[in-house]
Amino acid sequence: MVIELSFLKQIAGVAAEQTLPRFRTISLIDNKYQAGFDPVTEADREAEKAIRKLINASFPDHGILGEEFGGENLDHSHVWVIDPIDGTRAFISGIPVWGTLAGLTIDGDAVAGLMAQPFTNELFMCDGDASWYEGPGGIRRLETRKTTELSETTLFTTTPAMFKDEQRAAYDRVEQCVRLARYGTDCYAYSMLAAGFVDLVVETGLHPYDIVALVPIIEKAGGVITTWDGGPAEKAGDIVAAATPELHAKTLELLNR
Amino acid sequence: MVIELSFLKQIAGVAAEQTLPRFRTISLIDNKYQAGFDPVTEADREAEKAIRKLINASFPDHGILGEEFGGENLDHSHVWVIDPIDGTRAFISGIPVWGTLAGLTIDGDAVAGLMAQPFTNELFMCDGDASWYEGPGGIRRLETRKTTELSETTLFTTTPAMFKDEQRAAYDRVEQCVRLARYGTDCYAYSMLAAGFVDLVVETGLHPYDIVALVPIIEKAGGVITTWDGGPAEKAGDIVAAATPELHAKTLELLNR
Repeated sequence: MVIELSFLKQIAGVAAEQTLPRFRTISLIDNKYQAGFDPVTEADREAEKAIRKLINASFPDHGILGEEFGGENLDHSHVWVIDPIDGTRAFISGIPVWGTLAGLTIDGDAVAGLMAQPFTNELFMCDGDASWYEGPGGIRRLETRKTTELSETTLFTTTPAMFKDEQRAAYDRVEQCVRLARYGTDCYAYSMLAAGFVDLVVETGLHPYDIVALVPIIEKAGGVITTWDGGPAEKAGDIVAAATPELHAKTLELLNR
Repeated sequence: MVIELSFLKQIAGVAAEQTLPRFRTISLIDNKYQAGFDPVTEADREAEKAIRKLINASFPDHGILGEEFGGENLDHSHVWVIDPIDGTRAFISGIPVWGTLAGLTIDGDAVAGLMAQPFTNELFMCDGDASWYEGPGGIRRLETRKTTELSETTLFTTTPAMFKDEQRAAYDRVEQCVRLARYGTDCYAYSMLAAGFVDLVVETGLHPYDIVALVPIIEKAGGVITTWDGGPAEKAGDIVAAATPELHAKTLELLNR
């Protein structure tokens, strides 16, 4: 075990204190960029501060890379990669498929992580050895579905509009082969993949803080997650997560045809 | 008041007894049609039976039109239009944005309704006079946001792939004008519109049981919901729901340009 589940739950707790009271309030949205629409709420910033404070107090020799406040001690062996609210667009739309992400890397490898959805009271966790779900139905191991065929696959992506030009053609090749394609869920789709209800997630343009926490949760549940060229998912960018190695290989082949 | 909130909650209760224990179990899916993918779970059928039994016992002179078991007494003045699980694709993917829908029509007009999401423990209700939310944060009135400009609008649709040819061009005209477009939520998006977190929903191909329950919830929250040609939403088919009359008018103009 790399990290106690109880510590991951502490992270979820201090984040929820900041996010949940601000969920479904409308006045707190501002724009990080003048152009475009990249909402960041007060909840996002306050939750990251709370998570940083907890990590600093508990593991003063661990580094932290966060979406809102950047990096500290990134040259240390143990580095937490955190996104206090992944899925801010869902958050501001009132849809409870956003989550708090915190992943622990050792020498760059994602080894443990947390995805917490406080409105539904759900935790998806990896302690380094195994992946766990804790929610309204109690605690249980997370295990991916044994899907190996694209024709039996449920695919998720946040939106097909994220793919441009050749990437869009590559994504479309995959979507055309699957049984069901659904959009719009950010970290929640990766969590459902770990839980065995979704088989494949294909995305692009991800930052490390969008994905690092989810990597060990998926891997220790039996899934495979890499970049589109088969590299380590910790690099972020173009990501493929699959329920099985077979499905992952078939998807990479289609994407890179 | 047309119907007591307590009766709408009874509907939610008997449906949840059938849906919730089957949510996130995988073995119960079968296909209504051999071709394509139209999942219907045992939960869907059992929940509709339970709702029908409750309505028949409480209001024996009311008709019922349901997704799974068709119509009975449709020539009566009061007819319930029910969809035990709207968003079956979300249901089978483990995403808690599906809902149980039950709407009451009088002489064809939708006057009261319920959307219930039992995993998040949320109810969106209209008793004929007002619209109500009951959830983890207690009970409150539902009220739409006062958005009148497309440039300030959050738009939802289940998937842009539902629109073909000229309809796709019409939908795209709307999407290109809004601040934020999101996909994938079925009845939950309409509920968030009634709650003031989403401004616009544009869809097509809907059946009456997909939309009738939501019509009074949106209207008594201050929103406007019609077909794309401005007709009564009870007809279903092509639907526009907007937070304000101004936004509704601007959207119709764009769709029908």
